[in-house]
Amino acid sequence: MSETLVLHEYSASGNCYKVRLTAALLGIPLQRREYDIMKGETRTPEFLEKVNANGRIPVLQAGGRFIPESNAACHYLADGSRLIPADPFDHADMLRWMFWEQYNHEPNIATLRFWRGWVGHDNLSDAQKLQLPLKREAGVAALKLMDEHLADCDWFVGAGITLADICLFPYTHVAEGGGFDLREYPRVEAWIARVNSAPHFIPMTA
Amino acid sequence: MSETLVLHEYSASGNCYKVRLTAALLGIPLQRREYDIMKGETRTPEFLEKVNANGRIPVLQAGGRFIPESNAACHYLADGSRLIPADPFDHADMLRWMFWEQYNHEPNIATLRFWRGWVGHDNLSDAQKLQLPLKREAGVAALKLMDEHLADCDWFVGAGITLADICLFPYTHVAEGGGFDLREYPRVEAWIARVNSAPHFIPMTA
Repeated sequence: MSETLVLHEYSASGNCYKVRLTAALLGIPLQRREYDIMKGETRTPEFLEKVNANGRIPVLQAGGRFIPESNAACHYLADGSRLIPADPFDHADMLRWMFWEQYNHEPNIATLRFWRGWVGHDNLSDAQKLQLPLKREAGVAALKLMDEHLADCDWFVGAGITLADICLFPYTHVAEGGGFDLREYPRVEAWIARVNSAPHFIPMTA
Repeated sequence: MSETLVLHEYSASGNCYKVRLTAALLGIPLQRREYDIMKGETRTPEFLEKVNANGRIPVLQAGGRFIPESNAACHYLADGSRLIPADPFDHADMLRWMFWEQYNHEPNIATLRFWRGWVGHDNLSDAQKLQLPLKREAGVAALKLMDEHLADCDWFVGAGITLADICLFPYTHVAEGGGFDLREYPRVEAWIARVNSAPHFIPMTA
């Protein structure tokens, strides 16, 4: 890509790691700009006007244009690459897992990790405390669904790694931070090891 | 498309309407199979094994294969059509709105409509009741974001209707069922009228 790419991010966020991991696997250079979400740095008038009116990271800046939503940013970086299947069914099936990740996986597994590791139990609202068992149950169901799917395949779609794997990986491999025990999902653990072994893989802390 | 397409659905669901609307705008014939989600018909062992292990509708069946997740099903139907921009940035920008819809819009605007119209206030759990003001606030923010975006454009991405519009339309145009007043979002109202006027448009009740 000829344009300059800047990732507006909070580097501890799994959603931001998705974008860095996609870029790394494809050898695409990314500049990085850090915002402290705990200090409200993505809710400033300047951020809302220039970067993302939704006040969230990550946002991928491509030249003078901006793409919010982690999974959409990954799709932009990977367009035309081996990380997106060329076949229309497989492309849609990949997107299926990416939409599922945002609806069924992230709001449970990532949110519990955030509440435990960043907010702290004592600081949760009553509404959040009442949601803890529901989010735990939904997170367990998500990990179980992944484990069952991986009974028949090494990767979520097709014969190699795609954005489906890249977008499911970040919050899955640190799910223990949300109180989930990955040893209960051995196929997920084996898949995590496969992603870790992908050429040009970078860890979340890179 | 040469294969037989079957939509497994609950027809009152906006997520299912997305798929029917995409097919209608493109002139693609769809067979329909109805499930009553209020009677648990998408949680039967047969449904979980054959249609969707996640126990949800819609699922698009294409020949012998199945695509869960409404927005992914729309992408399959519209692949290669005018409803998906050919430009990689615009394609990603369209997906941005579709991921945003699933994360920021549907869990608030659609869920409040479902709780009011299907579950009923007296039947909500304490956890759900405590979420009511939060979901209302997030739903208002989502409609406001849409209204502000439409200040500069007729459609969410590019110069014509795309899947971004189609996937945002169903739960937006019935948001009053969740207690939202669309008169507060005049650009959204004008956009709803534009979608209503698209060639081959079908209403949610069709």
